[in-house]
Amino acid sequence: MKDEESGISEGRGRRHAPHEDMPAGDPCAGLVDTDTEYAHPADVAEHIENLSLEKQVCVLRNLPAEDAAEALAELDEHVRVDLLENLDADVAAQILAEMSPDDAADVLDELDEDHRDVLLNNLDTEDADEIRHLMAFDPDTAGGVMNTEIVILDEQLTADQAILQIRREIEDKENPYYAYVVDIDDRLIGVLSLRDLLLSRPGVRLRDEVGNQNVISVLFDQDKEEVAHLLGHYNFMAMPVVDYEGRILGVVTYDDIFDIIQEEASEDMLGMVGAAQDETVDTPWFESLVKRLPWLVVNMLNSALSASVVYMFEGSIAQMAILAVLMPMVANQAGNTGQQALAVMIRQLAVDRFDSRKSWRAVAREGKIGLASGVIMAVLVCAVIWAISGKGALAAVMGLALLCDMLLGAVAGGSIPLIFRALGRDPAQASSIFLTAITDGAGFFIFLGLASLLLL
Amino acid sequence: MKDEESGISEGRGRRHAPHEDMPAGDPCAGLVDTDTEYAHPADVAEHIENLSLEKQVCVLRNLPAEDAAEALAELDEHVRVDLLENLDADVAAQILAEMSPDDAADVLDELDEDHRDVLLNNLDTEDADEIRHLMAFDPDTAGGVMNTEIVILDEQLTADQAILQIRREIEDKENPYYAYVVDIDDRLIGVLSLRDLLLSRPGVRLRDEVGNQNVISVLFDQDKEEVAHLLGHYNFMAMPVVDYEGRILGVVTYDDIFDIIQEEASEDMLGMVGAAQDETVDTPWFESLVKRLPWLVVNMLNSALSASVVYMFEGSIAQMAILAVLMPMVANQAGNTGQQALAVMIRQLAVDRFDSRKSWRAVAREGKIGLASGVIMAVLVCAVIWAISGKGALAAVMGLALLCDMLLGAVAGGSIPLIFRALGRDPAQASSIFLTAITDGAGFFIFLGLASLLLL
Repeated sequence: MKDEESGISEGRGRRHAPHEDMPAGDPCAGLVDTDTEYAHPADVAEHIENLSLEKQVCVLRNLPAEDAAEALAELDEHVRVDLLENLDADVAAQILAEMSPDDAADVLDELDEDHRDVLLNNLDTEDADEIRHLMAFDPDTAGGVMNTEIVILDEQLTADQAILQIRREIEDKENPYYAYVVDIDDRLIGVLSLRDLLLSRPGVRLRDEVGNQNVISVLFDQDKEEVAHLLGHYNFMAMPVVDYEGRILGVVTYDDIFDIIQEEASEDMLGMVGAAQDETVDTPWFESLVKRLPWLVVNMLNSALSASVVYMFEGSIAQMAILAVLMPMVANQAGNTGQQALAVMIRQLAVDRFDSRKSWRAVAREGKIGLASGVIMAVLVCAVIWAISGKGALAAVMGLALLCDMLLGAVAGGSIPLIFRALGRDPAQASSIFLTAITDGAGFFIFLGLASLLLL
Repeated sequence: MKDEESGISEGRGRRHAPHEDMPAGDPCAGLVDTDTEYAHPADVAEHIENLSLEKQVCVLRNLPAEDAAEALAELDEHVRVDLLENLDADVAAQILAEMSPDDAADVLDELDEDHRDVLLNNLDTEDADEIRHLMAFDPDTAGGVMNTEIVILDEQLTADQAILQIRREIEDKENPYYAYVVDIDDRLIGVLSLRDLLLSRPGVRLRDEVGNQNVISVLFDQDKEEVAHLLGHYNFMAMPVVDYEGRILGVVTYDDIFDIIQEEASEDMLGMVGAAQDETVDTPWFESLVKRLPWLVVNMLNSALSASVVYMFEGSIAQMAILAVLMPMVANQAGNTGQQALAVMIRQLAVDRFDSRKSWRAVAREGKIGLASGVIMAVLVCAVIWAISGKGALAAVMGLALLCDMLLGAVAGGSIPLIFRALGRDPAQASSIFLTAITDGAGFFIFLGLASLLLL
């Protein structure tokens, strides 16, 4: 949670001297415009991203370390890595020291090992140890995204003592509005808001105040997406993170969750079609190419399989070329039907935990929709083809193939994410590619097979 | 923002009598299990969703109104509507009165007009007016999701007077940690956190305390997705909502943003393939069918256009049936390439504002990736076909068509969302359907055209 959460931007630049004396005749001197000093860190970051690397270095070097730290935390990863590698190590370390330890750990995680060690050696030992401690957690878990600057209260304190402690710590903590009550072994036994404390009788002991609480927390090694679900489910502002002994380690806050939810949505949509899951338009194109190519090859192999189905019926097509005209329509329509089911299912898995009863009900629902839309489209297409060509048998074959393949597409689209999940895979990854393989292959086989049997 | 944001669930049921005397011999009496009384409202809601409608009514009727209100706010829309239509109007009104006005307005918005009026008439006039006021805002705007229970401070107050006022109001407000400072005309001039106030000199006037602030706020008619972007950009906990005169109306809080981000991600993924944008696995299947069918028909018409391209070359296919075997591979591969570009672009539009310079750079990036992967796949496929069939010319035609169509697919996938946006349309809606139309139609045309020119 950031200090700026209230919607204020107060021009901090005014209150602090730059962290480094500006050398006389510095070529960067003119670059730090006064507007920037008044701006919100997120806007400063956006401003920096549009500059050349050289100018970025200048701006960051001349901002007060505290402002530079906040802007750095908001920068795009690719920009940030370049920038840190080009800043002097001592300036970079000064900026890192001003960041919250969890943000600093995230930033250092992105650097290569050499740069990282240089920067850590430039920090004072206590800061460096805290950051190393946080970097030990898997970045995809609660421990990897948690914030450690929290208020921890001993259960023996009274409510008025607790308020005094919070007032003492208020300047150092990112979010002093929630405090975590621990017992003598540091185990989390309750959560109190400043409001709760202000409404308590002054002399009441925290242990008695939280006696009834059924504290909801997550383990440090829990998947961060699962933490995001829980925070969204309970509408919490912060979720306490504990170790296996129940001792409090930190909190995951709402602003981290914004990013996790967005990342998850991107991963699903990009993964579905075989793009790199963390791709943005700022990813270097060659990196994207390398990550997409394997899935394009998989798609080509799938597509070659479908082609081999068509090849089996080469003779039929040579006798009746109209089959080649209609065949892609069957596959395309079933593919679209399946993708509708697929999209609904992947999104549901993103927002919901989904037990197996609900899973099968959901697949059955897609089956119903697939059957009904299949019947409707089949009748429609059959009628049109009959009207245009006058060939009733061809129209019937087309209709029947379309119905079967659309039903299959709907059931496959509904099932693939569930099957992938059951196999321990990402439910979205390449799902659209495998779906298309099924609807194409089956569509060609059913249509050409029926045509060969009934028309030739 | 909910009271439960701290991560606590304290068993409120214990502290309040049920809002209605339970009639002797009530058949529902056994249903409200004691566990539920200790549970978090979000968990109560989940429990309720798994019951039959009759039992849902019983549970809700027997919960204290405050608990029932919190659970109701968490229920799935379809469940909630059924439930409210089956509760006695006076019980439902009691529950609504306990909800925050913005939640109550959302709930009433879902009901049909008759039920809504009955419930509003059962509320006391003041509550009903507040809810009617909120219902007048478009639900897709900041006004439609904002929360009005905020602390508003007069700029003439001193810091210690302000703290006193907050302590007085603390029990009624959902989030007393931020207070909004207004001038004599109710115009928002600053935001203060409780921390800021505790750190201020007691006698300082709020006007002087916020003098420097550059308050960030949104207009009531701003799109809620835009508000979500801004909140995520600034990491705010709450975004103030003002009218055209700058007067404060309410705030949009982080927990509303969770829902907006998830909804937006669903809308994009479902919209892309022509499913209903608000569909979940709980949507009645017939409702989904009705909403998906029009896009399936559009897809069929597109697909008929592509088929007519193939029909132009019926003669070529009759002479050389192998063309029908290879033709779908071109279209499928280009379709997948395009969908990768499409997915990256749609996600980028969801998290970023995107100026036109960045747009064209992004399309150019997709073009580069499409060209490079096109060349690689073309060489690969060309070599394989040549090796298998020994027909160099056929292999060359296949490779060339694949390259052209993949490049086209990448550029189309990158451009379609931008073009849709420029036309004032949703960038995602049916984008995949139109993309497929382009890659299929062009793929068939290029491949069959080249084959007819060069091979026959």
